[in-house]
Amino acid sequence: MSVQPVHINGEWRPSTGSKTFTRINPANREVLSGEFPVSPWEEIDEVLEAAHTAFKEVRDFAPERFADFLEAYAAEIETRIDDIVAAANEETALPVSPRLKDGEMVRTIDQLRQAAQAARNRSWTLPTIDTKTNIRSMLGPIGPVAVFGPNNFPLAFNSIAGGDFAAAVASGNPVIAKGHSAHPRTTQLLAESAAHAAETTKMPKGFVQLIYRTSHEDGARLVADKRLGATGYTGARHAGLFLKEAADKGGNPIYLELSSINPVFILPNALSERLDDLVEEFVGSCLMGTGQFCTNPGLVVLRAGDHAEQFISAVAKKFEEAPAGTLLGEGVEQSLRAGIVAIQRTGAHIVTGNKPVDESRCCFANTLLRSTGKQFLNDPNGHQEEAFGNSSLLVVCDSDDEMIAVAEQLEGNLTGCIYSETNGADDALYDQLAGELRRYVGRLLNDKMPTGVAVSPAMNHGGPYPATGHPGFTAVGIPASLRRFAMLECYDNVRPHRLPPELRDENTIDGLSRFVDGEWTDRSLGQ
Amino acid sequence: MSVQPVHINGEWRPSTGSKTFTRINPANREVLSGEFPVSPWEEIDEVLEAAHTAFKEVRDFAPERFADFLEAYAAEIETRIDDIVAAANEETALPVSPRLKDGEMVRTIDQLRQAAQAARNRSWTLPTIDTKTNIRSMLGPIGPVAVFGPNNFPLAFNSIAGGDFAAAVASGNPVIAKGHSAHPRTTQLLAESAAHAAETTKMPKGFVQLIYRTSHEDGARLVADKRLGATGYTGARHAGLFLKEAADKGGNPIYLELSSINPVFILPNALSERLDDLVEEFVGSCLMGTGQFCTNPGLVVLRAGDHAEQFISAVAKKFEEAPAGTLLGEGVEQSLRAGIVAIQRTGAHIVTGNKPVDESRCCFANTLLRSTGKQFLNDPNGHQEEAFGNSSLLVVCDSDDEMIAVAEQLEGNLTGCIYSETNGADDALYDQLAGELRRYVGRLLNDKMPTGVAVSPAMNHGGPYPATGHPGFTAVGIPASLRRFAMLECYDNVRPHRLPPELRDENTIDGLSRFVDGEWTDRSLGQ
Repeated sequence: MSVQPVHINGEWRPSTGSKTFTRINPANREVLSGEFPVSPWEEIDEVLEAAHTAFKEVRDFAPERFADFLEAYAAEIETRIDDIVAAANEETALPVSPRLKDGEMVRTIDQLRQAAQAARNRSWTLPTIDTKTNIRSMLGPIGPVAVFGPNNFPLAFNSIAGGDFAAAVASGNPVIAKGHSAHPRTTQLLAESAAHAAETTKMPKGFVQLIYRTSHEDGARLVADKRLGATGYTGARHAGLFLKEAADKGGNPIYLELSSINPVFILPNALSERLDDLVEEFVGSCLMGTGQFCTNPGLVVLRAGDHAEQFISAVAKKFEEAPAGTLLGEGVEQSLRAGIVAIQRTGAHIVTGNKPVDESRCCFANTLLRSTGKQFLNDPNGHQEEAFGNSSLLVVCDSDDEMIAVAEQLEGNLTGCIYSETNGADDALYDQLAGELRRYVGRLLNDKMPTGVAVSPAMNHGGPYPATGHPGFTAVGIPASLRRFAMLECYDNVRPHRLPPELRDENTIDGLSRFVDGEWTDRSLGQ
Repeated sequence: MSVQPVHINGEWRPSTGSKTFTRINPANREVLSGEFPVSPWEEIDEVLEAAHTAFKEVRDFAPERFADFLEAYAAEIETRIDDIVAAANEETALPVSPRLKDGEMVRTIDQLRQAAQAARNRSWTLPTIDTKTNIRSMLGPIGPVAVFGPNNFPLAFNSIAGGDFAAAVASGNPVIAKGHSAHPRTTQLLAESAAHAAETTKMPKGFVQLIYRTSHEDGARLVADKRLGATGYTGARHAGLFLKEAADKGGNPIYLELSSINPVFILPNALSERLDDLVEEFVGSCLMGTGQFCTNPGLVVLRAGDHAEQFISAVAKKFEEAPAGTLLGEGVEQSLRAGIVAIQRTGAHIVTGNKPVDESRCCFANTLLRSTGKQFLNDPNGHQEEAFGNSSLLVVCDSDDEMIAVAEQLEGNLTGCIYSETNGADDALYDQLAGELRRYVGRLLNDKMPTGVAVSPAMNHGGPYPATGHPGFTAVGIPASLRRFAMLECYDNVRPHRLPPELRDENTIDGLSRFVDGEWTDRSLGQ
C-alpha cells in the first residue's frame, strides 16, 4: 500500500509532504499496512485558502443545503458501515459489537441527522428582534472550523464525522478535519463518504477537507490563522493547551475538551443502603471501554468506615476478576502507566493491579489506587493526575468536613456525581457538597455514573478549565453545541429585504421561536 | 486631600501600598487635588479572597437579591447625580449637559434597572429540559468578575456602575472593580453608592469591591487567578491584549472590547442622491464627544468622482468650522497624534487639521486624512491604525471592485455601515459589499452612523477579533450581555427538590420561557 492521499479542495491527491507515519493494531501490536502523510505548511495553507473560498460561497446558501449534505452523508455512511467499523476495530481494538457497530456508529449517524434537523429548524440561531429600535440579531456561522478528533471515539468524535464536525457544518461552516494519527484509515473511509456526499449535494470544493497529521508548529499555525473561524479539539491536555496558546494569540476561538477525572462522591448512608449495587455500577462504569471515556470515574471519595472497606474490597475483587481490556494504543498504555506512577508519588498506594498482563497486546491490569482525605489535601494536584484507562483512585476521608474540603480543592471537570441515601439521610451533607461541586463541574449527577453522554439538547459535555477552555459551551447536545461555531450578527436599521429570513417581520420558518421584545414567540411581527 | 481609601471586603480603608497617582482636569491641564493608591499584590490577593468567599455565599441567594441590590444602587445614585456628574466633568471634560447628566447618567441608571429586571425574570439563563433523559441545564454564575472600565464613558461603562458591572451582578457574580486611572474620583463616588446599597440590601462584604490601579504584572495576575470567574475589559488594545494573554494562560474567560475603526461605505448613488445629508450625518457622528466613542466612524470608503470630491470638501469645511473639542486627557491626546502619524506613513495625506489648537487644554484640531483604495490595499494594516478622537480617514477607490477589495482586507470591527441609494440603484454593489463586511463586523448598519449604541436586547456591541476577544458575545444589550459571565450548569438525574427553581417541573417563574423537548414554552411540565 502506497502513501495514502489527502483530501484537499475537492480532490483526493498525494500529499506534497515527504514525511509519513504508520499505525499499529493495538490488539497484537503489529504495524498495519499503509502509510499516511504528514502535511507540510504549504499544503495546510492551501487547505486554509480553499476553506476560506468555500466559506465565501456557502454564506449565501440556504440552511437546507447544509442539512441536505449532512443527511446525504449519513446515508452514505450507512452503505459502508461494515467496512468503516472493521477499520476502526483494527485501528483501536474497540469491539465491533456492541461498541462500534451497535453503539458508536448508530450515534454517529444519529448525530449527523440531528444536526441536519437543527440546520433546518434554525433553533441554534437565537433570533432576537427589538421592534422599538429596529435592531435585530442572531447567531451566524463563524468561518472555517478546524476539527481535531480524539483517539477514544473513532466514529462519534471523528474529526470528519463526529459531534464537532456535525455542529460546525450545521451552523454553516466549512470543516478542515485533522484526523487522529492512530486511526487514519477509519477517518479516510469516512472522508470518502463525506466527499462523495459533498459532491452529490453540490457543496463547494473546499467545504470538507482532510489531512492526517501536521508538525506541532504547523498545527499551531493552523489554529491561529486569520482565515480560520474556530477550532474544536478533543484529546490530551498537553497537546490541547499547546494549540490553545496559539489560537488565543491569533484571536481565534478554540473549544477544547481535555482531561477530566470526574469525581464521584458516595455518601455514607448510600453506601450502607446499597453497597452491592454501588460496587456493580462503579466497576461497570470504570472498566467499560477499558476506562477510555472522557467521563470515566477516575476519583471516588468515600467516608472511612466498615462499609467503605467492604466497598473497596468488593471493587478490588471485581477489578481482579475482570479481564484487562485492550487499550487504544501504545501511547495510551504508556500514559496510563505514567499516570499511575504520578498518583503513587502523592503517597497513594495500589490496592490491586499496576502490572502488565499480556505483552502481546496494548493493555495493563485493572488498577485501583487508594489514598486518604488528608493526603489529598496535602497534594490536591498530584491526586488529580489523570490516569486515562482502566484505573481509578479511591480517597477515604475521616469526616464529612474532609469530604467537603476535598471538593473545594477540585480542578474543573466535565462531571461530578453524588450518590446519596434514597430517603434523605444524606441530604445535609449533599447540600454542602453539591454547593462546592457545582462550581467545578459541567454536569452534576445524582445516583448515576458519569459515563454515557446522551446527545440531548440539555447535555453539557463541557465544564470549567482545565476540563475545557470555556465553561459556557458544550461539545455534545444539539442545538447548543452549534453555538460554539457561531458569531453574533447584528442588523441595525437594515432594509427589510436585505435581512436574513430568520429576522424578517414575517416568520416563514416553521416552528422557529424568536426573542421578540423580550418574549419567545413563533409569530410574525405585527400579528 | 490625603490618599483616598480603597473598598475591600466591605470596608473603606487605606491601601497598604505606598505608590500613588494623581489625575488632571483635561480642560485646563491642572492637576486635581487628591491622591489615589496603587494597590500592591497582597491587597489584590485579599480582594480576590473576599470575592471568592462572597461568591460561595451568594450562590444560595434567590435572584431577587441581586435585583434588589441593583435597584437600591440605582436609587442611591439618583440622590447624588449632581456630585457624580460634577466629578466626571472635572476628570474627563465631557460636558455636564447634555452628555453626562442627561445622557450617560440616565443610561447608567436605566442599565442597572434593566439588569435588575433580567435578574428577576431569568431570561438570560436559557433553561433547557429534556424530559426523555431527565437532563436539564441552564446558565448560572461564573464566579467573581473583574471589571476594567474605559476612559471614555466614566458612568455608563464605569467599572463599578456600567454595563459590565450590571451584567456581572445580575448574573449572580461578585465584582472586583478596577477603576480607570483618569477618573478615580467619579468611580469612588459611585462605589460609595454601591457600597451603601450593598449594605442596605445585605449583600456579603466582598460582593462589590474597588481598587484604582495595579501594576501591569499584578493586573495580569488578577485576571489569571483561579479564584476569578471572568474579566470584562474595555479600553486600549495593547493593555487589553496584555491582560488577554494572562487570562488565556490561566484558563479564565476574558471579554474584551478593544479598538475599532468602524468602516463606513458610502455607495456612489447614495452620494449623488443625498450628499448634504451624508456630510451632516458623518460630521455629526465623527466629532460627537470629540470622536471618543468605540463606534466612532474612523474610516470612510468612497468611489472616486465629483460627488466624492464635493463630499470631502464639504466635510473638510465643517471640520475646520467646528471647534476642536476637549479630549479626555493627555494620554488620548498623545495617542491621537501618534495614530495620525502612523496613518500618514501609509502615504495618506492630511486634508485638514493635524495641528495643535489650544495648548491650555487637552485637544487637537479636527483632522481629516485621505488615501486611495490602491494605497489601502498596499498596506491594509497601516490604514487601519486607530486614531482615537476627532479624526477620520477617507479612502477613495477607483472602482466598485476596489471598494470590495478594501472590505476584504478589513480587520474585525464592532460596526460596519453601508449607505446606499433609496430606490435600489446601489443594490448590486450593496449585496457584494455586505457579504464581505458581514464577516468582519458585529453590527451591520444601513444608512445610519455607528455611534449611539442602544441598550437593546438585540444589540451587538462586539465583533470579530481584534475588536473583541470572541465574536459570539456582546458587551451591551440585556439579557445577552449577562451570558458572558455565565457557565453552563447541567443536572443529570438530579432529584427534583434539589433542582434550581428554573429547572423544576413546575414553572413558578413568571414569564420564564424554557426550551423543553425542543420548543420554547412557559408551561409547567406535564401540562
